[in-house]
Amino acid sequence: MQAAVSRADLKRFVDLATSTPTLLLDLGIVEKDYRTLEAALPGAGIFYALKANPHPEIARLLQTLGCGFEVSSLGELKLLLDLAVEGERIISSNPVKSPEFIRKAYAAGVRHFAFDSAAELDKIAELAPEAELAVRLSVPNDSSEWPLDKKFGVDIEAAVHLLADARDRGLRPHGLIFHVGSQCRDVAGWITALEKAKLLWDEAARAGVELHLLNVGGGIPVAYSRNDVPFPAAIGDAIIETRARLFPSEVETYLEPGRGVVGRAGTMVCSVIGVADREDGRWVYLDAGIFHGLAEAMGGISYRFLSLAEGAEEPCTVAGPSCDSVDVVARDVMLPRVRVGDRIVIPACGAYTTAYSSEFNGFSGPDTKIVPSVRNV
Amino acid sequence: MQAAVSRADLKRFVDLATSTPTLLLDLGIVEKDYRTLEAALPGAGIFYALKANPHPEIARLLQTLGCGFEVSSLGELKLLLDLAVEGERIISSNPVKSPEFIRKAYAAGVRHFAFDSAAELDKIAELAPEAELAVRLSVPNDSSEWPLDKKFGVDIEAAVHLLADARDRGLRPHGLIFHVGSQCRDVAGWITALEKAKLLWDEAARAGVELHLLNVGGGIPVAYSRNDVPFPAAIGDAIIETRARLFPSEVETYLEPGRGVVGRAGTMVCSVIGVADREDGRWVYLDAGIFHGLAEAMGGISYRFLSLAEGAEEPCTVAGPSCDSVDVVARDVMLPRVRVGDRIVIPACGAYTTAYSSEFNGFSGPDTKIVPSVRNV
Repeated sequence: MQAAVSRADLKRFVDLATSTPTLLLDLGIVEKDYRTLEAALPGAGIFYALKANPHPEIARLLQTLGCGFEVSSLGELKLLLDLAVEGERIISSNPVKSPEFIRKAYAAGVRHFAFDSAAELDKIAELAPEAELAVRLSVPNDSSEWPLDKKFGVDIEAAVHLLADARDRGLRPHGLIFHVGSQCRDVAGWITALEKAKLLWDEAARAGVELHLLNVGGGIPVAYSRNDVPFPAAIGDAIIETRARLFPSEVETYLEPGRGVVGRAGTMVCSVIGVADREDGRWVYLDAGIFHGLAEAMGGISYRFLSLAEGAEEPCTVAGPSCDSVDVVARDVMLPRVRVGDRIVIPACGAYTTAYSSEFNGFSGPDTKIVPSVRNV
Repeated sequence: MQAAVSRADLKRFVDLATSTPTLLLDLGIVEKDYRTLEAALPGAGIFYALKANPHPEIARLLQTLGCGFEVSSLGELKLLLDLAVEGERIISSNPVKSPEFIRKAYAAGVRHFAFDSAAELDKIAELAPEAELAVRLSVPNDSSEWPLDKKFGVDIEAAVHLLADARDRGLRPHGLIFHVGSQCRDVAGWITALEKAKLLWDEAARAGVELHLLNVGGGIPVAYSRNDVPFPAAIGDAIIETRARLFPSEVETYLEPGRGVVGRAGTMVCSVIGVADREDGRWVYLDAGIFHGLAEAMGGISYRFLSLAEGAEEPCTVAGPSCDSVDVVARDVMLPRVRVGDRIVIPACGAYTTAYSSEFNGFSGPDTKIVPSVRNV
């Protein structure tokens, strides 16, 4: 699944990036990967998790393709409304939302929200009483590189209690949502989660709350420097088979991919701003780093670093431009002897790069440049 | 050193923050803490590390007080030049700088740069040949909460070699710089560093390079939820005594405080956007978090969280507004039963808060509001 990058590809990327750091964005790959997910889970509602990359051209494209959107904030909502996305194609799966966001989203026609606390039901009862609600179920995140199970989600008993509470208040408990964690490396993550979801489904029915919707969240992985991630088709098959085994045939299914839609579509081009031979080996300093586009390196994402330089490769530590010693991106990266001014190309940077970027230390994060889609990847 | 915050203070902060999250900035405290540092290390050149908080009003005030500035990037340089700060009052202590930055800084009159590699000397020889140079010496960072010793700095032997290399190229090796790490909790950090600096000083002299400048970096701590940090006066005394014991009387001294100048001057006011009673206890969700102003919580800074709510306190987990499970700010924070819409006041937020903030997930970081200085802290 990890795309081979030829020397000609590298040269093309370097030439396209007239300044650095730049994120080259190939909308043809966004379209292709969106369609792959559509085909992997036919009939599912797909809601792009806008946080992965909120570039308006991505949203505009996905809108024309019929994709929905998952948002959490007034900023994300405004971006979509400015593009005239209809509220009914927007959902919010953040279980804890500000009252102002709920009010404005509901006014814009958003009718689907996640929750996992009684306090959230208080807000929804007041501000969005007709919305369909999905309770966030906690599931194991063992298979993912960026686990999401520490902050949200309740266990089965609490979930049933919350669903019954919603019903008793006259609200509309409609389904459940789980998240296997971002960059999930094993289809077993979804199977285990669906098995737990089935227990909740049945317990809720026994408590008199009939559910209709399974939101299987995101987690679709992208190949970085390791190659062993499952294809979307394999994930889709696992979900389809498990769903058929455990749930009624008419169950509605939502999918909320972020990385799985835009991860492969972005290629970062950076410049080498310094090199140093230190006691622990060679260091290569780039004009992008932890605070400026490569934050996920802190969380275990192992990017590939490619160079047009020639000669023998050696293990290097790759660091960012800031004064902060946290700003170390990767260790034991094999690189030829690069020099100040050389370009470094980092594939699969479409997701959670520009989105996490700050202006710390006076450095700008990568600019985004839409490039012609010429690669058939 | 941790300031007591009365109920009247809290009420005043809450009233001043007409929206949230907001960083209330008290320039009177900036001035007071700058003067405290001036008094702690008389005769030293003080260069404010702009990365701690690049708000222009801070720079403008420090400029009028006679303070210099330490910068790393074109963005920071531009901010100062827009305020008509003279280049000679600006230094750059980032040992690895982009060629474009060196060129523009030199053109603006900046004449002092740090370095710790031969590749940096290549750049300086070409772009800033008349600048005074300080070699970055690695020193132990055991006493600091945000260590800075992993990315920059060389040991004595390599430092001497680099200083001699600079001299042989006709450049101007002038001094040394070390950094004990940010938020350094023990004056021993500076003493140990100065003792190591003395070894380099003497070794350099034996190699025919006479040094003139000791840049003791930053690291001046601020009291967060723990109270046991040394006063600036104690740090100054330790530096003065150790310097007198080890270095010639005419040695020039630079100090580069960031947190020590602006940390206490900022007070963050947030809103509670959600609460949840989970299996592991109570959670309180704020409209500021790891990606939006409180990033240093990840690195061990333990903020205080204060509320006007009444009643018994209980241990809470405090989290930010985003969907990301990394966005958990603190655990076991004692808080009364706060409700959605209540305000939370976080003292000592002037440094490394807005500076690290991103717009991840569509949330804006805290706005900064300059407030009248009425507190004598």
